[in-house]
Amino acid sequence: MKNIMVLGGDGFCGWPVALFLSEKGYEVTIVDNLSRRKIDNNYHFNSLTPIASLEDRVSVWNSLSAHKIKFNIIDIVKEREIFEDLLLRVKPDVIIHFAEQRSAPFSMKSDVERVYTVENNIGSTHHLLSSLVKLDIDAHIIHLGTMGVYGYSSTEWEIPEGYLSVQVEGRSGKYTEREILYPTSPGSVYHLTKSMDQLIFQYYASNYQLRITDLHQGVVWGTNTKQTNRDERLINRFDYDGDYGTVLNRFLMQSAIGHPLTVYGTGGQTRAFIHIDDTCKCIELAIENPAKSGERVKIFNQVTETHTVLSLAKKVSEATGVSIQPTENPRNEMVENELDVCHECFDGLGLKAKKVADAPLNTEIELAVKYIDRVDKSIIKPLSFWKSK
Amino acid sequence: MKNIMVLGGDGFCGWPVALFLSEKGYEVTIVDNLSRRKIDNNYHFNSLTPIASLEDRVSVWNSLSAHKIKFNIIDIVKEREIFEDLLLRVKPDVIIHFAEQRSAPFSMKSDVERVYTVENNIGSTHHLLSSLVKLDIDAHIIHLGTMGVYGYSSTEWEIPEGYLSVQVEGRSGKYTEREILYPTSPGSVYHLTKSMDQLIFQYYASNYQLRITDLHQGVVWGTNTKQTNRDERLINRFDYDGDYGTVLNRFLMQSAIGHPLTVYGTGGQTRAFIHIDDTCKCIELAIENPAKSGERVKIFNQVTETHTVLSLAKKVSEATGVSIQPTENPRNEMVENELDVCHECFDGLGLKAKKVADAPLNTEIELAVKYIDRVDKSIIKPLSFWKSK
Repeated sequence: MKNIMVLGGDGFCGWPVALFLSEKGYEVTIVDNLSRRKIDNNYHFNSLTPIASLEDRVSVWNSLSAHKIKFNIIDIVKEREIFEDLLLRVKPDVIIHFAEQRSAPFSMKSDVERVYTVENNIGSTHHLLSSLVKLDIDAHIIHLGTMGVYGYSSTEWEIPEGYLSVQVEGRSGKYTEREILYPTSPGSVYHLTKSMDQLIFQYYASNYQLRITDLHQGVVWGTNTKQTNRDERLINRFDYDGDYGTVLNRFLMQSAIGHPLTVYGTGGQTRAFIHIDDTCKCIELAIENPAKSGERVKIFNQVTETHTVLSLAKKVSEATGVSIQPTENPRNEMVENELDVCHECFDGLGLKAKKVADAPLNTEIELAVKYIDRVDKSIIKPLSFWKSK
Repeated sequence: MKNIMVLGGDGFCGWPVALFLSEKGYEVTIVDNLSRRKIDNNYHFNSLTPIASLEDRVSVWNSLSAHKIKFNIIDIVKEREIFEDLLLRVKPDVIIHFAEQRSAPFSMKSDVERVYTVENNIGSTHHLLSSLVKLDIDAHIIHLGTMGVYGYSSTEWEIPEGYLSVQVEGRSGKYTEREILYPTSPGSVYHLTKSMDQLIFQYYASNYQLRITDLHQGVVWGTNTKQTNRDERLINRFDYDGDYGTVLNRFLMQSAIGHPLTVYGTGGQTRAFIHIDDTCKCIELAIENPAKSGERVKIFNQVTETHTVLSLAKKVSEATGVSIQPTENPRNEMVENELDVCHECFDGLGLKAKKVADAPLNTEIELAVKYIDRVDKSIIKPLSFWKSK
């Protein structure tokens, strides 16, 4: 079976993906610098669900499972030599790169977080690729990007998977077709780093023939998977704070404690969504359908549906009776937008998605109720503002 | 007069620009980490012309000129606090940002130089902008970018100044016009960093209303200006090595020592050029025609003419009788290309350019002859290769 390295394998997406792949029989090595836990400590955030230490959760998994996971606490930006030694020992077939600061609001808090986000995210992506070239390791790199790089201005066309065909007027007045990387329009410093990542991938794929798949993921919702449900000590993060809590999870937690649902502005922002189960499945599909050497970067939209923020709030409100509370928007974004996203690539590979409409939201609500004593109400409100200095 | 900070003011473009602006009466503060001198030491490169220390060359200038230059040796990436203190003291009206590693071949040498180039160039650009937001300093930022971000594939259209109008087919089959940032296609890690810089500028101009002008410069030729000619201790760098020597300067030095002119491949590569005198004039025009707050990034092509590498070699060969020596191309680039670049912005502001055809190349040849004893022939050949690990 393939040898898989999961960078950021202690995080909200990385952990369930690592277990999912381990259960499928892949050899999994987690690499993480525990930065997400450190941010919790430094900023007084916490996961609604109680998270075991990385050592403990891996040891629980290894006691339950036929397939053992290995883990290494390494900062791949600051401890490159140690990381390169590991790369040479593991010789991964696939490297899944989740090792980036992933919160848009956090990246907008102040100079400290802007600089951290750029140094960490650009450093982890670029230095990883440069190390692979240096060490001559031909691993397939799967990166978690975001739909958000494109911004959210409504367009007359469906957002394609990575590449857009355009017509350009030439000197003679004749139009020529050209295929370009879909232009980015990032809405935060976090999204900016993901836009910059794209350029790094393009160059390393074209000059060094690295094999790269970039997954432009939507907003993830849901918490646990079949694997993380096997023992409480395997439980996944549930972020509900104003910085790291993604919108649907935040609403579910709010409804559990009877807090009005905080909809920013009119709630007319349309976003793309995916369930954490489908994140796992998409990663496996990407592993089994790798980019080839000399091929351009494969870009898949890892989204399964789109909704407006208000429609999600209404759905939760109807299910729970909790009211909606319009809240001043801390972000600099369009008040309302349409969003039409192509997701043929994963559909074509056979993904059967779990949609919000069909999903039993009560699983999430029950989870929130179970850990209600851990809620810190002071971190529910917006904590970062797009106009901060 | 305006208060101008020149980041990278000890370098090949930064130094003559600093003196030019000082002579015009601007208050000039140079900030430099001396990285270019350190690279000379570490890699055993040297400038053909003997360069005085920054302290000495500034002191000579200040003894000759009515307008005094100040200088500070600061690494703006690694010594942010010191740099921010200086920003608060100087409160610059304009910041000219030359503080980037500028050699494409150097950036391709190995992992060490790839990582250094990305850390330094992205760090200097991003952290500068983030500091300006943090400190609430409304300075006009003028950045030295490069034509090279677009790559050199021939197109049916003239390369515009920053923005390209394209037609995109919508769902109904109807085409919609959209103006996009001209897609980049960087040809080296150095060019990659300049492409990434562009995205940083777009975001900081749109979210934080920073005022930014990005100058997409061609290959610079020539060495001294009226100001650097005033005293030998003010002399500018003349790089002739395979990494930092730009093509026309390299040919001029080669002809001076009777070394065959090293043309890579067929020499059919068309590039855009500008004389160092015109670099200075363009910067002044950019200062006096600043971007406005809330306006998108101003992008000017800072080029005055295009030539193939072979045509330049032929011109030098005819003038000097030195033969042309086809050399295996160390780069990964198109063998031959056309290049048609719009430069209406600076033309419209009244730039009268100094063209290769009209220029007395013998000034440069005489300079090379004068310092012929300083030539290290071992560094003339290509020193970096695009396929290096």
